[in-house]
Amino acid sequence: MTNSAPLNIALIGFGTVGSGVARILDTQAAAIASRAGREIRIRRVVVRDASKPRPFLPAGVNVTTDIAEVVNDPDIQLVAQLVGGVDPAYGYMKQFLAAGKDIVTANKALIYTHGAELFQLAAEQGRTIGFEAAVAGGIPIISAVTQALTGNRILSLEAILNGTSNFILTRMLDDKHSYGDVLKEAQALGYAEADPAMDVDGTDAAQKLVILTRLAFSTSVALNDFVRQGIDNLELLDLQVADDLGYKIKLLATARLNDGRLELSVQPTLIRKDRAIAQTSGANNIVAVEGDAVGMVTFSGAGAGQLPTASAVMADLIDYATGRTAVTFQSILRSAQQPSLPIQSPDELTRRYYLRLNVDDRPHVLADITDVLGRNEISISSVRQDETPEDRADGDARLVIMTHRTNEGRFRAADAELEKLACLRGTSIRLPVAE
Amino acid sequence: MTNSAPLNIALIGFGTVGSGVARILDTQAAAIASRAGREIRIRRVVVRDASKPRPFLPAGVNVTTDIAEVVNDPDIQLVAQLVGGVDPAYGYMKQFLAAGKDIVTANKALIYTHGAELFQLAAEQGRTIGFEAAVAGGIPIISAVTQALTGNRILSLEAILNGTSNFILTRMLDDKHSYGDVLKEAQALGYAEADPAMDVDGTDAAQKLVILTRLAFSTSVALNDFVRQGIDNLELLDLQVADDLGYKIKLLATARLNDGRLELSVQPTLIRKDRAIAQTSGANNIVAVEGDAVGMVTFSGAGAGQLPTASAVMADLIDYATGRTAVTFQSILRSAQQPSLPIQSPDELTRRYYLRLNVDDRPHVLADITDVLGRNEISISSVRQDETPEDRADGDARLVIMTHRTNEGRFRAADAELEKLACLRGTSIRLPVAE
Repeated sequence: MTNSAPLNIALIGFGTVGSGVARILDTQAAAIASRAGREIRIRRVVVRDASKPRPFLPAGVNVTTDIAEVVNDPDIQLVAQLVGGVDPAYGYMKQFLAAGKDIVTANKALIYTHGAELFQLAAEQGRTIGFEAAVAGGIPIISAVTQALTGNRILSLEAILNGTSNFILTRMLDDKHSYGDVLKEAQALGYAEADPAMDVDGTDAAQKLVILTRLAFSTSVALNDFVRQGIDNLELLDLQVADDLGYKIKLLATARLNDGRLELSVQPTLIRKDRAIAQTSGANNIVAVEGDAVGMVTFSGAGAGQLPTASAVMADLIDYATGRTAVTFQSILRSAQQPSLPIQSPDELTRRYYLRLNVDDRPHVLADITDVLGRNEISISSVRQDETPEDRADGDARLVIMTHRTNEGRFRAADAELEKLACLRGTSIRLPVAE
Repeated sequence: MTNSAPLNIALIGFGTVGSGVARILDTQAAAIASRAGREIRIRRVVVRDASKPRPFLPAGVNVTTDIAEVVNDPDIQLVAQLVGGVDPAYGYMKQFLAAGKDIVTANKALIYTHGAELFQLAAEQGRTIGFEAAVAGGIPIISAVTQALTGNRILSLEAILNGTSNFILTRMLDDKHSYGDVLKEAQALGYAEADPAMDVDGTDAAQKLVILTRLAFSTSVALNDFVRQGIDNLELLDLQVADDLGYKIKLLATARLNDGRLELSVQPTLIRKDRAIAQTSGANNIVAVEGDAVGMVTFSGAGAGQLPTASAVMADLIDYATGRTAVTFQSILRSAQQPSLPIQSPDELTRRYYLRLNVDDRPHVLADITDVLGRNEISISSVRQDETPEDRADGDARLVIMTHRTNEGRFRAADAELEKLACLRGTSIRLPVAE
């Protein structure tokens, strides 16, 4: 196929993604070699239990529990670091870079937490890090923002980046089930972890948004710089009322240039049903990128899963084999040196809002609440309170208020006053409405 | 920003796309230089009329009508060939390659007609050709199939690749206008050429499908190898009946692996309304790529227009400046050497069909037609004939038949018999239904 020397790689981790990469390399060897310009050959695999059988590995591959065997093997040029979580992956990465190895990884938490430092370390060593698989699984969004759309100033990103949350929201509405019931179903199907906190509280989506924001806006940012809200307080009623009003509720990650400052948020958001983002169902991801030249370009597909993620890892392996990674990584390093944009204060986020308040079913409640909103200059667009069903467990009424455009700051002021009202029960919900 | 020498380029043509490229280079110079690793500098522009004012060009740029000034300028390394049509662009390209220059082009007809030969010529000269802008405007679909999805065996492409046709189909249904009226509107708005034949007869979409098929399936194919049908015979009634049945009609370009053979077609097709392709409206394009690992990944955005197309040209210019083009073009050349897949005979295309027959409004018509279909083993799923409106110009009835799965070959046999029926008037329509 080609006369170049093979590229020898090591896989760290042989779980879902690692075995997917091995499977693709095993079944598509000739095609991959043609596209990469040389054979890509797994030489070593590091796992926790070396005695388990490992499918799709060619004969002669060394399976070990000892990371040092990879670090010290001068024939291994590239390491596919496919273990999740920050530790011990962080320590491994530093060892590999120090040993002069290039890295491809699917580890989003690691790139979020230590990306800047690891990129710098790689630059000092003359090495590269590929991380297409860290965001949005099989959707080639890293390559889009670092390569295909580089003729643009990026104006906004709007994305669904957490498949678990999107699966739960889709199923709740479709099957008329509660959040808790669908979460259990998602766990049984493998769409949600035993501990789903990072998925449903918005952390996973926010980390991915940060990684994209660094690349697309050359801006350094962390989770504490912006509003992050999960789906764990949503009720089926919220999804149904929004649906009646012409919206779907999605866990939307947004980064948008506003007068030279960056607006960032990860929040369940009401999105008009006719938009592609609203129609993204199940465990899928979508990223809508607006560039000053290209306009809106949308990328959608599987945001997770064995083979979609392995597809992204393979793209990085092939990019490395051809030499594309070396130039792309230089662009990423140059971009990181650009001056960061200022981040807009969360108080200034200006949108329409959906409020759902759980209230005591008695006189003057609506007057008390609308008085607080009015004094904080929050203008009401519509109000809806249906009769409380006999079988509702808590017996409280649900008051839904849509507001005109206002900002988060006014709500924070109103929140303190609302909390003092005796009529409010349990957890209220405040969701923005996308333009 | 960077210490590398500037990249000197020439623009051939300063129409819509050329002036868009100049505008981006003028307004985003620093950001482009950071991403490209060096300044990208327009040195010469070749136009038909050198006396016209040319906005966005920096002082000192030589504007000429003489292509030889570019060919003979040793300081110009890269030529952005932004003139449409096969001639004289084809001759220009050969001169540039012979003079040792690399090329970026937005010229789809040229890449379709002479791409293989020009790629070979470039390879012999050690030069490269970038053509992201030739297909789907601002959507980075060439980079997706040649880079981001290379870990996959591509199983299918389904795409809307002609913005003019999609604009016309969208407006016909939304505004309840005839094909002819909307075509005039599209021409007035600049969405359709004075001579729209290549857009509305499917040629433009088919040429783009061929370019994508060569890359995604490593298969050499030409327009005569597959079914190509335009939108010019569609009536508003077809769009309305399809809408009632739950479908949108879109000019769909399809390439699909079926048992090792490639099914190809460009046809107006009934697509279920809940699919993203059906929801692609106006002049937008969409490409849904199915890979064996990644599953379905969808790319959508503006398929034409000044800045979206210029965005794609800029991506190619930056890729060239960084050195990515050199490796990607080698992959494309290697891919072209793979054995071609056999093309499935059009007769074997197997789908459900929508038939609309213009018929004489008299007895036994339905019996005559269904007899022909039945004898050719075409099984009917549903029939609809509404009362003929008093104001219909031709006074003929419209008979709509949905069939069960059958193949194109049976229809070709039936067509000959149908033609002999005295009851058939004017142009009948046969459209496939997407799975």
